[in-house]
Amino acid sequence: MNNNAQTGEVRTNDLLIAIRTLLRGVAQVMFQCNAWTGLLFLAGIFWGSYENGCPRVAWGAIVGVVFATLGGVFTKEKASDGEEGLWGFNGALVGCGFGTFLGSTWLMWISMAFFAMMSTWVRRALNNTMAAWKINSLTFPFVLLTWIFLFSTHLFTNEEITPLLSVAVLPSEVTGTLDYSFGSLVIYWLKGISQVFLINSWVTGLFFLAALFVSNKWAGIWAAAGSAISLAIAILFHADPSDIANGLFGFSPVLTAIALGMTFYSVNWKSAIWTVLGIIATVFVQAAMDAFFEPWGLPTLTGPFCITTWLFLLPLYKFNVTEPDHSFWGKKRKD
Amino acid sequence: MNNNAQTGEVRTNDLLIAIRTLLRGVAQVMFQCNAWTGLLFLAGIFWGSYENGCPRVAWGAIVGVVFATLGGVFTKEKASDGEEGLWGFNGALVGCGFGTFLGSTWLMWISMAFFAMMSTWVRRALNNTMAAWKINSLTFPFVLLTWIFLFSTHLFTNEEITPLLSVAVLPSEVTGTLDYSFGSLVIYWLKGISQVFLINSWVTGLFFLAALFVSNKWAGIWAAAGSAISLAIAILFHADPSDIANGLFGFSPVLTAIALGMTFYSVNWKSAIWTVLGIIATVFVQAAMDAFFEPWGLPTLTGPFCITTWLFLLPLYKFNVTEPDHSFWGKKRKD
Amino acid sequence: MNNNAQTGEVRTNDLLIAIRTLLRGVAQVMFQCNAWTGLLFLAGIFWGSYENGCPRVAWGAIVGVVFATLGGVFTKEKASDGEEGLWGFNGALVGCGFGTFLGSTWLMWISMAFFAMMSTWVRRALNNTMAAWKINSLTFPFVLLTWIFLFSTHLFTNEEITPLLSVAVLPSEVTGTLDYSFGSLVIYWLKGISQVFLINSWVTGLFFLAALFVSNKWAGIWAAAGSAISLAIAILFHADPSDIANGLFGFSPVLTAIALGMTFYSVNWKSAIWTVLGIIATVFVQAAMDAFFEPWGLPTLTGPFCITTWLFLLPLYKFNVTEPDHSFWGKKRKD
Repeated sequence: MNNNAQTGEVRTNDLLIAIRTLLRGVAQVMFQCNAWTGLLFLAGIFWGSYENGCPRVAWGAIVGVVFATLGGVFTKEKASDGEEGLWGFNGALVGCGFGTFLGSTWLMWISMAFFAMMSTWVRRALNNTMAAWKINSLTFPFVLLTWIFLFSTHLFTNEEITPLLSVAVLPSEVTGTLDYSFGSLVIYWLKGISQVFLINSWVTGLFFLAALFVSNKWAGIWAAAGSAISLAIAILFHADPSDIANGLFGFSPVLTAIALGMTFYSVNWKSAIWTVLGIIATVFVQAAMDAFFEPWGLPTLTGPFCITTWLFLLPLYKFNVTEPDHSFWGKKRKD
Repeated sequence: MNNNAQTGEVRTNDLLIAIRTLLRGVAQVMFQCNAWTGLLFLAGIFWGSYENGCPRVAWGAIVGVVFATLGGVFTKEKASDGEEGLWGFNGALVGCGFGTFLGSTWLMWISMAFFAMMSTWVRRALNNTMAAWKINSLTFPFVLLTWIFLFSTHLFTNEEITPLLSVAVLPSEVTGTLDYSFGSLVIYWLKGISQVFLINSWVTGLFFLAALFVSNKWAGIWAAAGSAISLAIAILFHADPSDIANGLFGFSPVLTAIALGMTFYSVNWKSAIWTVLGIIATVFVQAAMDAFFEPWGLPTLTGPFCITTWLFLLPLYKFNVTEPDHSFWGKKRKD
Repeated sequence: MNNNAQTGEVRTNDLLIAIRTLLRGVAQVMFQCNAWTGLLFLAGIFWGSYENGCPRVAWGAIVGVVFATLGGVFTKEKASDGEEGLWGFNGALVGCGFGTFLGSTWLMWISMAFFAMMSTWVRRALNNTMAAWKINSLTFPFVLLTWIFLFSTHLFTNEEITPLLSVAVLPSEVTGTLDYSFGSLVIYWLKGISQVFLINSWVTGLFFLAALFVSNKWAGIWAAAGSAISLAIAILFHADPSDIANGLFGFSPVLTAIALGMTFYSVNWKSAIWTVLGIIATVFVQAAMDAFFEPWGLPTLTGPFCITTWLFLLPLYKFNVTEPDHSFWGKKRKD
């Protein structure tokens, strides 16, 4: 009896820990180790994906984070990473990506589960590789694996796995003109934040901002600044109006902003200047990658964020110096 | 007299050692340090290339392995590597690749010899780079150099170096349907193994299987499994029927299977599961790379094998840990 | 009075040091730490860009080297690097590149200044990464950033930033035939040297040769040899006649020749053979990259030089060996 009661308690605790792990997995997409942030992210994802008539994106996020976390369990990844949600975040994005660019078939869901699991192992592979420079793979496992699967679907003719090209293709022609009213700009700005999870909805953008402020005010502030600054640059250089209006120039700079502004450097005015430079650079890296991927009609995902953030983290790293002196930047980077 | 006899004996020994080195060079394409395996590989290559009316592939393998080995002699590469055949295997593949994709002209043979020699130096360059993560360059020197030469021939108009585009171009349209009879499937399966040396012949596939069993039964078993599993996945996703029928989805997974299943991990059920996952992943990586290279009509060669094998070796490597603990996987990886 | 005089003297000295730093920055494009070489380079650049009716290339070189050097000042880069001109050379090339491929508008000049500054930080990022293998980033920061901006302009429709596609596009069709007279060959050969700074002028080639001999006779000899050998190979393989005539197959091999022949290896007959092999390899790497970039009509810049030079430096590096033994090559490489 006593034993049973104890076991029951343990089981409840295990379940709560598992749920916390999964919610943190969702939150870690934007570098937050906070289950409530993850819950609000999920709420925003469900709102937006149902609003857009595409619920498989939200369910994909769930399937993705679960299987990615299971991937960590199977190969006995570092437990502390799992607790902090670091096993799951690439999987959550894989789920959103597959849900966005592929139709809902049994073969798609099986592939999603397999690639979500792989994301945890590829993260370990890339983190091991990059540890030499004290950087990590960020969301690149998601980017790489989604590229691989979307590219490969070009060659497959099984109707169960048809890519939704109308979504994946970037418009090469300018369609219409941009509405510059204040209300419209606010909507573009919020969509830039919601697109981090491939959601096209300003309401979801509000959910995400709230979720970030719950975890850390600087995360919220930098996400807001990242989307605003990138919006201004995209308008200045006359990027494609529909891309701007759908927030497609915002999501990578949002992640760069959170990564550089408050995650890997401490918050101060010097790192703030550096972060603004990084946000601007991300817009050019994204435009370049969009142009590069145009022949295949493939999305660049958060690749531009990864590349720019690495470029802005590496200058501060001195190779073979045990105690790097980042005094200029306020504090040592987390590794 | 006595001296002459001794010198003669030494010369015979030197010649035998040289031949063994070259045969092992051919065998190392599939990770076997065994001259008999190399001899059987060569027999299969000659059979298949003459059967296909393309004898320059077989002679290319000879020229390639010889010049690659000479490259190692010229720059005084590590002698133990040479003895194990590690100087020659990229060159053998360069020879098969040039023979397959280019016509037989004096300029092609000179270029082949130069690029085969370069393969030994590029191998050293890439191995030095990758030593930091305890992986090596596998067949990537062959892949990189053959890409460089095939790409560059697009720009050259010398008729002595015309690429055979009809071979190099991947068919973008589905041609016909696949024959699913048991006999046909066995032929596709064997061709998947023969294509490791760019040979399209089920008889050659039998030669290669026999050659692997001569060296190590697990090499043979994993090669067989790699071709069978990748065939099943390619059929499941409806890859191009003529690619499947010609074994083009088999050769990279065959190499992944031997690499993960018995070369870099010890043979046990855990590494077997890992290897099967790697074989499946190789099919997607190949389809993705095929789609990526389509605008240029270039072959992906064994690039998909290299990338997937690296991704499946790197998770087990802990950076800066002197004595890696691979107990989960049975034994320490060879470096 | 006395104090004022001293301050005046100090200011004059500071100004002279600043000018020397900038001139050395220009000289370091070809690995020379010599202000007079930089001055002669600039003279050649101004001559050629005015001759070609494209003065913004020359002024771009000035703006680029100034802002790149300021980038080093802002983030307090290593002072000795700055003194040797290592902050500025990528910026000088960014200026020439932007001036060559983009029209002269206010948005272009601002972008140029921003990307020139970034080149110093990207150089630090890449050098930190490559320090593990005792190589450095060469001119790759210029290559990477110019690619990013030129690619991104494909997506932008602001008329202030229209790329000059007629310049950037590589001709895919053979136009006319090559003039093989001795006088013409000399002009192609000199243009191969002038194109290092994206200048199409045989007079500028003479300026550059003179500038190199002022600094080090071997720099001049290897530049001359690099352009001549690559010209011969391009003619042998029938590369595009207008590319050959405009020196477009010469500039990367010129840099490979100086890098391998006298900068990173000591001058002797063994390193000379190695350098000649590197020059030949550069031609193939460039042709391959030209073919790869054709779908986007983008220039490969000095990318082929970087890739080939890395490939020819890395084989001599033994990982984790504190005192590398380069006795075969004459001396230890500079790091």
